[in-house]
Amino acid sequence: MREILVIGVGAGDPEQVTMQGVSALNRVDVFFVLDKGEVKQELVDLRSEILRRYATSKDYRVVVGRDPERDRTASAYVEAVDDWRRRRADVCAGMIASELGEDQVGAFLVWGDPSLYDSTLAILDDILARGELGFEVEVIPGISSVSTLAARHKVGLNQVGRPIQITTGRRLAAGWPEDVDDVVVMLDAQTAFTEYLDADIYWGAYLGTPDEILISGPLREVASEIEKVRAEARDRKGWIMDTYLLRRPR
Amino acid sequence: MREILVIGVGAGDPEQVTMQGVSALNRVDVFFVLDKGEVKQELVDLRSEILRRYATSKDYRVVVGRDPERDRTASAYVEAVDDWRRRRADVCAGMIASELGEDQVGAFLVWGDPSLYDSTLAILDDILARGELGFEVEVIPGISSVSTLAARHKVGLNQVGRPIQITTGRRLAAGWPEDVDDVVVMLDAQTAFTEYLDADIYWGAYLGTPDEILISGPLREVASEIEKVRAEARDRKGWIMDTYLLRRPR
Ligand SMILES: C[S@@+](CC[C@H](N)C(=O)[O-])C[C@H]1O[C@@H](n2cnc3c(N)ncnc32)[C@H](O)[C@@H]1O
Ligand SMILES: C[S@@+](CC[C@H](N)C(=O)[O-])C[C@H]1O[C@@H](n2cnc3c(N)ncnc32)[C@H](O)[C@@H]1O
Repeated sequence: MREILVIGVGAGDPEQVTMQGVSALNRVDVFFVLDKGEVKQELVDLRSEILRRYATSKDYRVVVGRDPERDRTASAYVEAVDDWRRRRADVCAGMIASELGEDQVGAFLVWGDPSLYDSTLAILDDILARGELGFEVEVIPGISSVSTLAARHKVGLNQVGRPIQITTGRRLAAGWPEDVDDVVVMLDAQTAFTEYLDADIYWGAYLGTPDEILISGPLREVASEIEKVRAEARDRKGWIMDTYLLRRPR
Repeated sequence: MREILVIGVGAGDPEQVTMQGVSALNRVDVFFVLDKGEVKQELVDLRSEILRRYATSKDYRVVVGRDPERDRTASAYVEAVDDWRRRRADVCAGMIASELGEDQVGAFLVWGDPSLYDSTLAILDDILARGELGFEVEVIPGISSVSTLAARHKVGLNQVGRPIQITTGRRLAAGWPEDVDDVVVMLDAQTAFTEYLDADIYWGAYLGTPDEILISGPLREVASEIEKVRAEARDRKGWIMDTYLLRRPR
């Protein structure tokens, strides 16, 4: 039976790979990669560096598929994402069927943790549900950008006995979630934090990489600094990955 | 300057330690442990096993302090926890002052990730705020029980574009959180999930350990099985650690 490993490799520092992750990397015959067709050469290099350092005990191949375009103009966000996922599933099913032998082990490397805002598991479920291709799935958890953010700022995510919400920039822009004082925001292209100047922020970009930037403080004091630093970094590098914790003191 | 490392060591499987964690373990002169005075000998053994496997390149000492009793009968939960934390800070400050040399490295090992429902960072903040003892803090993120739960069940925590709430059993018992379909529950001594039979559950106990138990399905079908298995396991082992994801399909 074919086996597919979904391996969380951490938020950007190769040293965030776990011992379990290293064992998994060394069982893999074929690494599957969806090429985003974008300029994030640093992420491609980082992935190569992880393989170079830790996948040392057997030969492997890297198979690259072309990531389908996502319709970012669609107003129906969920449908657009569902459609995109289906087309990605087509590409992945094709790669697995043609490149992975019946008794071989394939793998997808996932940034951060595979359980957080990542579509790899849903894609594999899609493929299995079609019933044309069979494989076992194993998931190796990874250090998420959220854990990395908290570690770098040396803060806990929750206040004593209180909940935490993890959400998207899009949703934060629609309103502060009910009954929660601590909100972690991912996938925010629009700096939605600027609407909540009463909160404290712990912000981090390119976490775990040599370009890491950390800013924290009362939003009233640091919001415009973060906007400025963020825009400059994105211009300089051509892309940005950032996440933040907003905290309303009780 | 003294240095204190707060090292997340994963949810129960020594192999969840990261490469970064291994490097950190090998810089430590003194590991500080708060002895809970309880019977969880397996957790003590697991911690020893992590040190035996990975802290191999230098000599270290393990210093054990007596964890103060927590008043579990107090009705004012937050105050009781605050008071307990202050008394733990007293114990930790005493250990650091008397056992860690001026240029040495101390460490606390934390189960899972230090950012989730763990008081170590707050204790160190408390000690630093008193101004009597100075040290640098560094935090090494770890694989949380939440990431482990999701990995073992091979599910994502969020639905597409939707938020996730991480909360406590105590709070779930008070009501399902507003505007969220996906809720991760920790610290639930009271099986609060039994109130939400319309949801699906992904439940896990002793995650990452040889005793790991996983049960999932519509709560209407599996709630009583989980209650039974949970009670039996707790009786057999004398303690239980469990966490779960509740999902209301959209
Ligand atoms: C598609 S999600 C994937 C999250 C990933 N699975 C994880 O566990 O971190 C991408 C979002 O994660 C956050 N992110 C991922 N890596 C990051 C990093 N190195 N620094 C800051 N934010 C990061 C950003 O909010 C980004 O928009
Ligand atoms: C004080 S909190 C610490 C959480 C920890 N910092 C983490 O990141 O997982 C303890 C709670 O975490 C959950 N937990 C920790 N380890 C677990 C394990 N191995 N299996 C299941 N649940 C676990 C349980 O809900 C438990 O009540």
